[in-house]
Amino acid sequence: MQQLQEDYESLRTSDTGHLRAAIRASRYTGHTAGLAPGQLQANIVILPEAYALDFMRFCQRNPKPCPLVGVSETGDPMMRTLGRDIDIRNDVPLYNVYRHGELHESGTDINHYWEDNFVAFALGCSFTFEDALARAGIPIWHIENNKTVPMYRSSIQTIPAGPFQGEMVVTMRAIDANRVNEAIEISRRYPMAHGAPVHVGDPSIIGLNDLSQPEWGDSPPPLEDKIPVFWACGVTPQNAIMGAKLPISITHTPGHMLITDIDEQAEVPVLAT
Amino acid sequence: MQQLQEDYESLRTSDTGHLRAAIRASRYTGHTAGLAPGQLQANIVILPEAYALDFMRFCQRNPKPCPLVGVSETGDPMMRTLGRDIDIRNDVPLYNVYRHGELHESGTDINHYWEDNFVAFALGCSFTFEDALARAGIPIWHIENNKTVPMYRSSIQTIPAGPFQGEMVVTMRAIDANRVNEAIEISRRYPMAHGAPVHVGDPSIIGLNDLSQPEWGDSPPPLEDKIPVFWACGVTPQNAIMGAKLPISITHTPGHMLITDIDEQAEVPVLAT
Repeated sequence: MQQLQEDYESLRTSDTGHLRAAIRASRYTGHTAGLAPGQLQANIVILPEAYALDFMRFCQRNPKPCPLVGVSETGDPMMRTLGRDIDIRNDVPLYNVYRHGELHESGTDINHYWEDNFVAFALGCSFTFEDALARAGIPIWHIENNKTVPMYRSSIQTIPAGPFQGEMVVTMRAIDANRVNEAIEISRRYPMAHGAPVHVGDPSIIGLNDLSQPEWGDSPPPLEDKIPVFWACGVTPQNAIMGAKLPISITHTPGHMLITDIDEQAEVPVLAT
Repeated sequence: MQQLQEDYESLRTSDTGHLRAAIRASRYTGHTAGLAPGQLQANIVILPEAYALDFMRFCQRNPKPCPLVGVSETGDPMMRTLGRDIDIRNDVPLYNVYRHGELHESGTDINHYWEDNFVAFALGCSFTFEDALARAGIPIWHIENNKTVPMYRSSIQTIPAGPFQGEMVVTMRAIDANRVNEAIEISRRYPMAHGAPVHVGDPSIIGLNDLSQPEWGDSPPPLEDKIPVFWACGVTPQNAIMGAKLPISITHTPGHMLITDIDEQAEVPVLAT
């Protein structure tokens, strides 16, 4: 039976419960940028428990690309500290399933993959500080043009933990020179969302020689008189997981985040009970 | 051979390397409040790896009492992200060793206890925000009178993880009514050091009926016209560990912290390399 689909525009004013219900029923499978404004959205990583301690160590040592905001019990698919009735097997619009570091399948639920030894992790995402930049009137090209932020594999190395390591993936936003300090200060206030930039200015210092060719996302226009500002990116842990070639791992599909009940302005990412 | 002791006053102007060398050699075994101003100090918890994932989940879910700032590799006593040459078996002035939740021994090193399956955790401590309050000219009774901050077992419940659970331990500082908002704002800037208070005002709301009888630390003077302000305390994880009755666990002795090479103002608790 074909299910009724809900479109992005009709969901823009929905609350988080309605949004997750639409996503759970696969009535919405699109990207989540701009949905549930003011609510924390999260990158998702799901791994067998045998790798969970090393992955938590990797996040603790690399908090800017990997700001850990939630962890499930082993085998429990409910993300209890992030919201009411969040089932991580169904409540992300689109998942990527990896086997031995290779993309095996993308799909709208992972019920048939779920195992009793799985642990699910939620990591903060850049939508949070982008909202704050927009509220401050700092224009961001990819948002104004309905594109995906350009992402690059930089030469900045993460601090390893067990099998997890590799280059830090960064996003780039071109900012007017007279707003750069403000953008730094604003984003620094959101440690759950990558915090302050990891680099400002000359891309070659972090190993990037051609900003017009991002590894993920859309090619940005020429910088002209703007300054390129680079933030740590939540694709970094996906990159580390692929490199670790785990027998199985599951992530959200980039841009298709978990929508939580946590206020973006909350001091800690734990649901008030 | 009796080793030359160093006294507190002579160490007040020492750098972190000199301080840790004195502590490693047991030439200093005292409390660390006021030493290495501006450097992050840390509560320490050491557990067998079998409990490490649950303990990390406990910290992630209770970030105000348990702000995780460092984790060792399993069996590796070096805390590599927190400083140069930090050996967690020797570099804390005084340790408590617990067996099955009971204090077994206190001592100045744990070399003979260390096992290949141990994992060491460092958690931020209140010295950081107390420094910031002092710089803002907000008087703190226990510092001005060279006492230990009063600590209480509140009725606020932590969020459990595996065997770890129990009441949140809180510290109390009496603040002039017209400085309370400022104290909240200042401490909120230090998420690595318990952040903003967990309660302001009437102690009975968090289950405390007699502030003159703290469970740990020194009895404070009567409040008079000051407001009692309560912060989450790093003794909370010790309380949870004792309750879990692990076969073995090791902590610092309260007040006797690890002195790290991390700047208190750093955005993330990771040594710049």
